[in-house]
Amino acid sequence: MNAHVRPPRLTDGDRLWSNLMTMAEIGALPHGGCCRLALTDEDRQARDLFVRWAREAGCEVSVDPFGNIFATRPGRSRDAAHVLVGSHLDTQPHGGRFDGVLGVLAGLETVRALNELGVETEHAVTVVNWTNEEGVRFSPGLTGSGGFVGAIRSYDTSAISGVGGVPFYPELHRTGYGGSTRLTARIAGYYELHIEQGPVLERAGVSVGVVEGVQGVRWLSVDFTGEDRHAGTTPARDRRDAFMAAARLAVDMRTAALALDDAFRITFGRVSVEPGSINTVPGRVNMTVDLRHSEVSHLDRIDEAIRREVVALHGTEGVEGTVERLMDVAPVRFDPAMQANIETSAAELGIATSRLPSGAMHDASNLATVAPSAMIFVPSRDGISHNENEWTDPIHVADGCEVLARAVLRHAMGDMGPH
Amino acid sequence: MNAHVRPPRLTDGDRLWSNLMTMAEIGALPHGGCCRLALTDEDRQARDLFVRWAREAGCEVSVDPFGNIFATRPGRSRDAAHVLVGSHLDTQPHGGRFDGVLGVLAGLETVRALNELGVETEHAVTVVNWTNEEGVRFSPGLTGSGGFVGAIRSYDTSAISGVGGVPFYPELHRTGYGGSTRLTARIAGYYELHIEQGPVLERAGVSVGVVEGVQGVRWLSVDFTGEDRHAGTTPARDRRDAFMAAARLAVDMRTAALALDDAFRITFGRVSVEPGSINTVPGRVNMTVDLRHSEVSHLDRIDEAIRREVVALHGTEGVEGTVERLMDVAPVRFDPAMQANIETSAAELGIATSRLPSGAMHDASNLATVAPSAMIFVPSRDGISHNENEWTDPIHVADGCEVLARAVLRHAMGDMGPH
Repeated sequence: MNAHVRPPRLTDGDRLWSNLMTMAEIGALPHGGCCRLALTDEDRQARDLFVRWAREAGCEVSVDPFGNIFATRPGRSRDAAHVLVGSHLDTQPHGGRFDGVLGVLAGLETVRALNELGVETEHAVTVVNWTNEEGVRFSPGLTGSGGFVGAIRSYDTSAISGVGGVPFYPELHRTGYGGSTRLTARIAGYYELHIEQGPVLERAGVSVGVVEGVQGVRWLSVDFTGEDRHAGTTPARDRRDAFMAAARLAVDMRTAALALDDAFRITFGRVSVEPGSINTVPGRVNMTVDLRHSEVSHLDRIDEAIRREVVALHGTEGVEGTVERLMDVAPVRFDPAMQANIETSAAELGIATSRLPSGAMHDASNLATVAPSAMIFVPSRDGISHNENEWTDPIHVADGCEVLARAVLRHAMGDMGPH
Repeated sequence: MNAHVRPPRLTDGDRLWSNLMTMAEIGALPHGGCCRLALTDEDRQARDLFVRWAREAGCEVSVDPFGNIFATRPGRSRDAAHVLVGSHLDTQPHGGRFDGVLGVLAGLETVRALNELGVETEHAVTVVNWTNEEGVRFSPGLTGSGGFVGAIRSYDTSAISGVGGVPFYPELHRTGYGGSTRLTARIAGYYELHIEQGPVLERAGVSVGVVEGVQGVRWLSVDFTGEDRHAGTTPARDRRDAFMAAARLAVDMRTAALALDDAFRITFGRVSVEPGSINTVPGRVNMTVDLRHSEVSHLDRIDEAIRREVVALHGTEGVEGTVERLMDVAPVRFDPAMQANIETSAAELGIATSRLPSGAMHDASNLATVAPSAMIFVPSRDGISHNENEWTDPIHVADGCEVLARAVLRHAMGDMGPH
């Protein structure tokens, strides 16, 4: 039997945990969660604290027109591309202590580790806080990273709507984070450490997940129109029951999706049945479908199957159906060399990993459109997120951060090889 | 080829039609329907008109403590049992011109026909208007007939609730129909002519339906509790999707019910899915089930199948389910001799009939618990009722009334034989 010699840790898991708990006091909720909606006073306090900590770690701080904060530890050459590390400090209304904030503070911990190591890297390492990832106060979400990659144009006030009626740019300036310094450096790579928000890693007993990409998301709205009829007097053959059509569609399409790939995710989240009377055959149903998969071809196949079945249901149930596509976001694939780099770091530490897709969108989804990108997941207890009960154990936080720091270090030293 | 000689008609279809159209002016709606909710001023006007017409036809009119109006054409002996004929003058909020009122006015036309025939019957013939059949303003519906048969005790104010908050007895007295004369005569039989409110007779091309009974009705409420989860991050095997459980229950139970008997009627009319977000796996569903069949054993079998499947879905979908019974009304069988009497009348006239169950409850459901009872249905165009578009052709109205009158005459003459 070989006893592996573990290398010393570069990062301080306790310090990171302490930072997370300190940050969690801003916008703290009664049951352990946080409410720091983007560009509220709580978000401003969180940003101020991050900026203070970043400056204490020797970083140069700049803010761009979307309020994204860049905290840079310079590299050997001013001209070399930056390695970016980050996530977001804003939360859901009943959010947890980890979603987003972990990636930002682990980036900061990485910078501190590099400082303590006394290393000068080839590439600058820049920690980023992206604005309004959650999309609660302003729509669309992923606003800051979307603006950074050019998906949203700055000062196009029609592009970002205030969900509560409060406009984006005035709130940005009110909180003091309406900047003008764009990060113009090339990006060698973008790393984002995040909680999984699902149960896969916990069930696998693995503390670090290497994210292969982000599933594509397609949203459909299906309307069925039959006829309201008396439940007592209308025989089965004379019914045009919109709910039976909807129920058959749901059952059959879940079977079809999971037969194609048991990793397929299909959800009928909003189902409205009218007129909603116990003794009336329902004449109208609206139902949404959320389809997620890593392959566009798989999304296409189920999308087409739904449309075919809606037509078939006209024949079998006498119900007219229409399908409208509400949203379509292509799958993202993360950089293979960066995924391998993360796995190398974990292997050095003897930390087991597994590869998995991300079911949710992240700022890395945007970054991947302009630069090599990768994500690291750590387990979420019971897969719970967007909830005050969201929790990740300290050991997983520490492992994830250490793997991140080693990957960033190698990348920033230029040891990744050409790609 | 034999040419059948048709006997002359006893009733005047044109006069009945004219009465129906006159009555339809009370509470007339813009698209041809009527709104005469029980014990409103419109209902009072309709009652006043009926009482006037009944007195003009020589009837003795009395009103009982439930506001039921009895218009009696006396028979040979004061002691002989009465033959009752009737239905209700109240309507749904967007009701039609036929539902209920046809049965009352056809009873009146029967009395006129007996007068014109100059016949003295053995039994008295009493035309009845039952109070609040529809149950829109006061609950439960079928109030007057329920009170008459003793299912509701008079002046038990807790037994009848005002749906709009208006109490029953004060409204009864306000409109002048709080009577005190109970009909104490024995009942030889109760006949009710009504529109089908379904599509069976129209599709069969038959103008008169002989109703075998009223289907039993059982209402269930099914609650499923799973877990709200992120639609993107939660794999299929980790979901506890309350809507998928509900959809499977609906599809499987319809299949089971129709396999048992294709006359089974099963409706999932009210389906509420929470939290109702496109990208959240639904954690809670409440769904109602309306089961109707003529055999209690069939209702029992599907009721039990639902409970078994709800348990099974806990295993397959991880969703907890509970089933509550909201209502249970036993099936009613109408009197065989009276059904045969109706068929004899139709045969004399060369009118084709078919037997069918009633899917909806009627005042005859109550009467059948205390006296031999029977119903005659005439076709509803497109099966539509409780709707301003409700329609029955004049020929069907005339045929139904003539069959009724002949059946009542034979019964009132004591020619039915012992039963």
